[in-house]
Amino acid sequence: MIELTLIGIGTGNPDHITMQAARAMNAADLILIPRKGESKSDLVDLRRDICAQVLNAPVRIVEFDMPVRDAEGDYARGVHEWHDAIAAVWREQIALHLPGGGRLALLVWGDPSLYDSTLRIAERLPDVKVQVVAGITSLQALTAAHAIPLNPLAGSVTITTGRLLRAHGWPKGADTVVVMLDGGCAFEVLDPAGIAIWWGAYLGMAQEALECGPLVHAAPIIAERRAELRARHGWIMDVYLMRKEQSDG
Amino acid sequence: MIELTLIGIGTGNPDHITMQAARAMNAADLILIPRKGESKSDLVDLRRDICAQVLNAPVRIVEFDMPVRDAEGDYARGVHEWHDAIAAVWREQIALHLPGGGRLALLVWGDPSLYDSTLRIAERLPDVKVQVVAGITSLQALTAAHAIPLNPLAGSVTITTGRLLRAHGWPKGADTVVVMLDGGCAFEVLDPAGIAIWWGAYLGMAQEALECGPLVHAAPIIAERRAELRARHGWIMDVYLMRKEQSDG
Repeated sequence: MIELTLIGIGTGNPDHITMQAARAMNAADLILIPRKGESKSDLVDLRRDICAQVLNAPVRIVEFDMPVRDAEGDYARGVHEWHDAIAAVWREQIALHLPGGGRLALLVWGDPSLYDSTLRIAERLPDVKVQVVAGITSLQALTAAHAIPLNPLAGSVTITTGRLLRAHGWPKGADTVVVMLDGGCAFEVLDPAGIAIWWGAYLGMAQEALECGPLVHAAPIIAERRAELRARHGWIMDVYLMRKEQSDG
Repeated sequence: MIELTLIGIGTGNPDHITMQAARAMNAADLILIPRKGESKSDLVDLRRDICAQVLNAPVRIVEFDMPVRDAEGDYARGVHEWHDAIAAVWREQIALHLPGGGRLALLVWGDPSLYDSTLRIAERLPDVKVQVVAGITSLQALTAAHAIPLNPLAGSVTITTGRLLRAHGWPKGADTVVVMLDGGCAFEVLDPAGIAIWWGAYLGMAQEALECGPLVHAAPIIAERRAELRARHGWIMDVYLMRKEQSDG
């Protein structure tokens, strides 16, 4: 019997770890850490740092190479096949390192429930019992860094992706829109009039970068800064919140 | 000079506290704890428990009585006046306990950015420097407890309130809707066909209660259980996620 705990570890600041996450890490028999290729090796190092800081029990740590997603062809099928491939690698690692069963933990950036594949991959292992430990998301690190509310007073919030923003524009009826998983600057498809943006990259990390302001002014600044940071660090993770100005404001 | 840190403390499980929150609490000169009347005294006790568990520095803890919101008349005006009144009480407490300036901390349920008034109240104190420490929200405690993703694969999420759901029904174009601040069972206004619900109350606490299933079956079960729990404990805090079934599913 395998008990799998998906542990949200926040966005790169080891101090984002909750007491619950630290306990769950220490209660594991095995922690699997994915290696995703050279460009994001900062993130592998961060997972190692977090383990070094948090673990005070003898927990085995094993690194494995993540399968690479086929970016050609149909997006949904590419994602499904990638998840199948990752589940197969997990199975191999479990057979190798926990042949008699035990407690496996995986460290998930942000929160395992928000734009993360780990829960969907875990569903592919029917004989595994899954538990989730919530973690601080990049969305929360963004609003904390800017010291702004996520929602307008008594209002609603739409969380969406760069892909959907590009395809459909500003979500109908929304006041506040958070965009995640944007590999570029999808905000450039919008008419910027009346929209303000709060943007953050590498949130919680030493290289954290923030910009905010009316979209009409901020959009080119963010686009340029994003390109420069990506070139400098070899990778970038960013998120942004946009709000339409109140009609009375 | 007053430095005010708004510290997200999660939803009632002291283990939701992040390392960052624990550090910020210990770095404060003063922690103000609001008393909100008898019915929610469990929550005051929980804040005291968290302080007892987390603090290892000599931090002064002061409790104060929260002004009561005028529930009559216009909702927005009532909220604004209430926030003014709370800001006035903070000012009094600061003058009394930190006359020469210092570091003030407030412990906020969940995350200070999500459906919490504290940031808006802090804006009323222009000479105060505000910092935010993110915390685990009830929304995250909900998805963790049910071990479900928040967003559909590559899809969007709408976070809204019970009030907006009652007024406008299911948000246009949304697949997944999270409802917060619902003082009742606003889901009862919806046609339940094709909608699934995941509901949780007292998330992270000893009295945590969960229900899920097709809305048509779960709605009356949740309504009855909610009423029973509220009567038993004298208060309730709950949140729920609803998803429309995929047209292909």
